[in-house]
Amino acid sequence: MALIVQKYGGTSVGTPERIKNVARRVARSVAAGNQVVVVVSAMSGETNRLIGLAKEIQANPDPRELDVMVSTGEQVTIGLLSMALIAAGQKARSYTGAQVRILTDSAFTKARILAIDEDKMRADLESGHVVVVAGFQGVDEQGNITTLGRGGSDTTGVALAAALKADECQIYTDVDGVYTTDPRIVPEARKLDRITFEEMLEMASLGSKVLQIRSVEFAGKYKVKLRVLSSFQEEGEGTLITTEENNKMEQPIISGIAFNRDEAKITVLGVPDRPGIAYQILGPVADANIDVDMIIQNVGHDGTTDFSFTVNRGDFAKTKAILEEQVKGHIGARDIVGDNRTAKVSVVGVGMRSHVGIASKMFRTLSEEGINIQMISTSEIKISVVIDEKYLELAVRVLHKAFDLDQVV
Amino acid sequence: MALIVQKYGGTSVGTPERIKNVARRVARSVAAGNQVVVVVSAMSGETNRLIGLAKEIQANPDPRELDVMVSTGEQVTIGLLSMALIAAGQKARSYTGAQVRILTDSAFTKARILAIDEDKMRADLESGHVVVVAGFQGVDEQGNITTLGRGGSDTTGVALAAALKADECQIYTDVDGVYTTDPRIVPEARKLDRITFEEMLEMASLGSKVLQIRSVEFAGKYKVKLRVLSSFQEEGEGTLITTEENNKMEQPIISGIAFNRDEAKITVLGVPDRPGIAYQILGPVADANIDVDMIIQNVGHDGTTDFSFTVNRGDFAKTKAILEEQVKGHIGARDIVGDNRTAKVSVVGVGMRSHVGIASKMFRTLSEEGINIQMISTSEIKISVVIDEKYLELAVRVLHKAFDLDQVV
Repeated sequence: MALIVQKYGGTSVGTPERIKNVARRVARSVAAGNQVVVVVSAMSGETNRLIGLAKEIQANPDPRELDVMVSTGEQVTIGLLSMALIAAGQKARSYTGAQVRILTDSAFTKARILAIDEDKMRADLESGHVVVVAGFQGVDEQGNITTLGRGGSDTTGVALAAALKADECQIYTDVDGVYTTDPRIVPEARKLDRITFEEMLEMASLGSKVLQIRSVEFAGKYKVKLRVLSSFQEEGEGTLITTEENNKMEQPIISGIAFNRDEAKITVLGVPDRPGIAYQILGPVADANIDVDMIIQNVGHDGTTDFSFTVNRGDFAKTKAILEEQVKGHIGARDIVGDNRTAKVSVVGVGMRSHVGIASKMFRTLSEEGINIQMISTSEIKISVVIDEKYLELAVRVLHKAFDLDQVV
Repeated sequence: MALIVQKYGGTSVGTPERIKNVARRVARSVAAGNQVVVVVSAMSGETNRLIGLAKEIQANPDPRELDVMVSTGEQVTIGLLSMALIAAGQKARSYTGAQVRILTDSAFTKARILAIDEDKMRADLESGHVVVVAGFQGVDEQGNITTLGRGGSDTTGVALAAALKADECQIYTDVDGVYTTDPRIVPEARKLDRITFEEMLEMASLGSKVLQIRSVEFAGKYKVKLRVLSSFQEEGEGTLITTEENNKMEQPIISGIAFNRDEAKITVLGVPDRPGIAYQILGPVADANIDVDMIIQNVGHDGTTDFSFTVNRGDFAKTKAILEEQVKGHIGARDIVGDNRTAKVSVVGVGMRSHVGIASKMFRTLSEEGINIQMISTSEIKISVVIDEKYLELAVRVLHKAFDLDQVV
């Protein structure tokens, strides 16, 4: 008997009819001999509706209170899905994050999971129940309701799969797998049958919205077998995210082109070139719970250097303010400049490890289209560039073609 | 420093603008030197929306799962009201029923409060917070979310006032007090400045929808000073519900005309006239958690009698089925008959104790309009009759006039 965790996103549970479909799919998995834990998001549009309501009351909603109300979106779905299962003759029981209990830290609106109590779930599974858990939420030591931030339902799914040592964590979404890039931008984009955790991590963190990065990190760390599937297709194996690299002879060098439209660039000019300076700049930013993405520091000259990094566009103004107020005078920087009309494009692939010339091919392709590269950052399996936002679609298209991603392998 | 519990119903928190109004009213009470605990309902329409969603999934929603999702209505409101208070510069903190914790039994959709933990609320009040609590909900011993049934937010308010030994429990609603009867039926209906708990209990249980009966029971039992006020008027003292009877010389004999449109009548015919028979009939009904209202048994003849009672119209079919299946054969009754197109009208007043002739005046008034009385039930301070539903408005109007309730005293 296999233990499967299935996670259904907001679109998959967007209407009562779709919730009944999910119930049928879950019941089929139980009929096939599996124990099933289901994690669900809020019905599509609901989280935005709730946030909208909150903003009508308070422009910057109090984080604790925002979590109290936004967490109701998933709570409604777990009740409805459990009813649909019971109506279909399948025993089921729902749990909020607090009821499970999914213990998190107290960083409201972006909490991290610390521990999961699996006893209730185990007991329910043993007695033939499907366990339906609200994604995206937890509870802190003091009993306050917390949320994990946008996309956190994926993280809940993987975390439950890890805690329960599930045989597979299936992420059902509105796409049928992970693609070489966003098909809305490149119609020739192909579905990948499998992808490594490392590649997926780069794809996810770089803006391919199929899976949330934290869920992939979790899955990699706890060796959770992760599969992305469509909740709207009865057939299809989706994309398996695995620790094993593709061992075909002619493996593709590049797996995909990822991008992130919400990238804002900030540069601290004329920074004294001495040890500890990066921490002095980024410490206050981290303290404000702002995620920093790319970080670049060039070799200095005249005892000073320039320090650049990117943040989510929504954090741009706040980050600049923090640097102006807490950092600039303190470290004696010359100026803080930034641009929030930038985007990031990356080529990702484990094949890069054994092939040379990927970077130069990428840069030449962009150059031929007259696209200026503002920042470059590389890892073992990806090369990212920051460019003017207006060139984003063009860059993705020409790179997809340049690396033959539209060719069936 | 007084400790006030304020309860705001769904209409009072029906829009973001109204929630801000409530926040201003609460903040004023704090500024006047009070500690304030606020209990709120779901935004108007929200509970029905959620129940509608549930019924699209399951015709008779699973009670446990229904409570999980319906309880989110109040959870949204506590978050929003806390934000509004914080935005207005007033420290505030919200709690769900489970967080407080409001311990109930496990009768999903109609749970009863067993105990309230006041520690968190006390600590918050001491540190200058307004405490915002979700009405209508609690949590059972096993951590399951429960709801108290329709109108349960009033009960939450009074229960919190009792637990905290509050100086006053203010119920804000869309009317400015308790009236001699429903002004939509009798435009001449007058607001009462004060009413006794006993009268209010009769008025509430008989269908005046201002306050839920359980909240009045609670308030009377724990001597909670209860006041009904309008949340839409800045001025006005509302109606005080008190233990003291009106000591005016010329006190009105009758305080009001109450009615209940949702009354269904059931008669068990040819019941053996022996001890224990009432329990044998109503035991199974109570086991099904169905509230029985009026109960009438006439003197028997030929060793049998007829046993009649009324239930809420929504429980009519279920009650009849229970009697047919579990009771009829068991006790050897001749037949079960019923009518769900009935209504109950009552005259209520403590003055009745010292005045004679109220009943005969009531019966004569109805008789003069050709209204047939199907059942009669009396208590020390009320006389109720069951009549055909179609005569309800007429009966209320003529009784209101007959007892001079339209005259200013």
